[in-house]
Amino acid sequence: MPVTVECVPNFSEGRRKEVVDKIVYSIRSVPGIKVLDVEMDPDHNRSVVTFTGNKETVQEGAFRGARAARELIDLNKHKGQHPRMGALDVLPFVPMSGVTLQDCVEIAERVGARIAKELKIPVYLYEAAAKKPERKNLENVRRGEFEGLREAILMDESRFPDYGPRVLHPTAGATAVGARMPLIAFNVNLRTKDLGVAKQIAKKIRASSGGLPCVKALGFMLEKRGMVQVSMNLTDYTVTPISRAYEAIKMETDAAGVEIAEGEIIGLIPLDAVCDVASRFLKISNFTSNQVLERRIWG
Amino acid sequence: MPVTVECVPNFSEGRRKEVVDKIVYSIRSVPGIKVLDVEMDPDHNRSVVTFTGNKETVQEGAFRGARAARELIDLNKHKGQHPRMGALDVLPFVPMSGVTLQDCVEIAERVGARIAKELKIPVYLYEAAAKKPERKNLENVRRGEFEGLREAILMDESRFPDYGPRVLHPTAGATAVGARMPLIAFNVNLRTKDLGVAKQIAKKIRASSGGLPCVKALGFMLEKRGMVQVSMNLTDYTVTPISRAYEAIKMETDAAGVEIAEGEIIGLIPLDAVCDVASRFLKISNFTSNQVLERRIWG
Repeated sequence: MPVTVECVPNFSEGRRKEVVDKIVYSIRSVPGIKVLDVEMDPDHNRSVVTFTGNKETVQEGAFRGARAARELIDLNKHKGQHPRMGALDVLPFVPMSGVTLQDCVEIAERVGARIAKELKIPVYLYEAAAKKPERKNLENVRRGEFEGLREAILMDESRFPDYGPRVLHPTAGATAVGARMPLIAFNVNLRTKDLGVAKQIAKKIRASSGGLPCVKALGFMLEKRGMVQVSMNLTDYTVTPISRAYEAIKMETDAAGVEIAEGEIIGLIPLDAVCDVASRFLKISNFTSNQVLERRIWG
Repeated sequence: MPVTVECVPNFSEGRRKEVVDKIVYSIRSVPGIKVLDVEMDPDHNRSVVTFTGNKETVQEGAFRGARAARELIDLNKHKGQHPRMGALDVLPFVPMSGVTLQDCVEIAERVGARIAKELKIPVYLYEAAAKKPERKNLENVRRGEFEGLREAILMDESRFPDYGPRVLHPTAGATAVGARMPLIAFNVNLRTKDLGVAKQIAKKIRASSGGLPCVKALGFMLEKRGMVQVSMNLTDYTVTPISRAYEAIKMETDAAGVEIAEGEIIGLIPLDAVCDVASRFLKISNFTSNQVLERRIWG
C-alpha cells in the first residue's frame, strides 16, 4: 500500500505569478512529490498549493517551499484581505493513505523544528499538532497578524513560539505548522424555500451547539434553485462519517416534513471516506479501500 | 484520466509453474502492462491471470500470452476438472476506467482476429462481443470441449468460428475472446437459520426468474455463523447497482420479518461501483470517481 501524505501550504503571494512559480518549482524539485493543485488568489494575495509525497519526501518538499518563500516574499510589502503572519503562512499535513494523523503530527514537529532552526523563522504548532490547547485554533495563533505579532512575540509569554527565535523574521514573519484530517465539504439541499428549516437543522447538528462532533454547519438559501441548503464541513470523517451526518439531517427533515432534494460533495474526497459511506449503508463491516481495484493498479 | 482495460485470460495449465511463469513473463514484457494477480489451480489444471493496460498495450499483452500458450501447452495431454477447448481457453476484456464496454468489444474483435490470423487458432467471440446471440453464453461456445469440438467445427455450421480456420489448432485448440463488465460478488447475510427465506429472496431478485436484470443469486446456509446468505453476482453494476440489489433484499427481509445482519463484498470492486453506492445513498446525482483524491495522485 502506498503511503501518501498531503501537504497544503498557504503562501502570502497571490499576484506575482513568477514568484509562485518559483516556490512551486522548489517543491516539485523533490523526486516523488506530486503537485496536484496551485490556486492563486489576487484579492487575498495568497496562494494555496496542494502536493503529496511519502513521509520523507513531503517533509523535504515543505521545507524547500518554506525556504523559497523566505527568499522571495517580503511581508512588509504584502497587502491582501486574508489574515496572515508569514511568507509561508500555514503549513498543514494531512493523512491520506497508509498514514495516521499522529504520523502527520510528528511530521509537522520535524518540519517545524527544521524551519525554525535553519531558516530562523519562529514556528507555532496548530490544530492536531498544537502543544497548547488554545493553539488548536489557527485564529488564536495568527491574532494581530504580522504587524501585531511583531511586538507580542517579544513580550507576551502566551505568544512565544513553539520552535525558533522569540522574534519575527524581518521579512518572512512566522509560520504555523500543523496536522489535520482531510476536510470534506458536504451539503444537503432541502426541497423547501424556508431558510429557517435549514438554519435550525444546521444548528441542531453542528458541534459548536452540541450536535455531532467534527461537524461545522450553516443554513443557506439557494435562490436560483428555490431550495435551502445545510452546508457542512466534516473535519474528521472517522469521528463523524458522511453517512451519519446525512442520517442526522434525514431524521430532522422527516420530523419537519421536508424532503431531501439532493446531496453534494464539493471538491475532492479521500477514497477511504467514499468506502466508508458504501460500507455503512451496505452494512459491510470489513470493507476497505484495499478492495478497490484501481488501488491495486495505481497504488 | 488514465484509460485502464482489464484482461483476465484463462490458460489450460495449472500444475507446471515454469509454464505459467513463462506465459506471465511474455505478457509482462509489454511496457505499461501491470500483472495484478496469477492464480494457479492444480485441480482444474487451469490458471487465471489478471492484468491491466491501456487500449493498445492490453491487446499486445493478450496476444503475447496467446502466442506463449500455443507454444507451451498441448491440449492433447491436458486433464483437469474444468471444461476447456484451448491452450488459451478464454480471453475476456473488461472496462475499468475511461473506457466503455463497447471499446472492449472492439478490442476483443481486433485481438481475436490477430490470434486467428497469426497463430492459426479458430476464435469464437462471446458475451458482449458475441456476433451470434447463442454465443453470448460461454457454455454454448465451449460445448463438447477440445475433444468434441474437433469434429463439430469441421461439419456443424453453428460451430464455425468467427475468425480463423474451420479446424482446431492441433495442440492449442480454439479460443473464446470476449468483453464483459466487471463482476461484483456481493452477499447479504440474514439473521435467521431458515434457509428457505434466503432461497426465496434469491429467486425473487435474480434475473433468471424475472427479478433484477444482471443479477445472479442463490441462497446458502452459513452453518458456523448460524445465518443464511443471499449470494449474488452482479454482472453489470451500471444496469443493476449494488444499492438497488441491497434495497430489493431489504424490502423482502422487511416483509419476511427478518433482519439483515451484514453485507459482504468478495474480492475486488471497481472504484466507479463504490462511488455509485455513495452517490445513490447520499442522493448526489453528479458525484463521480474524478472527485476521489487518490485518483488525482495515482491516476
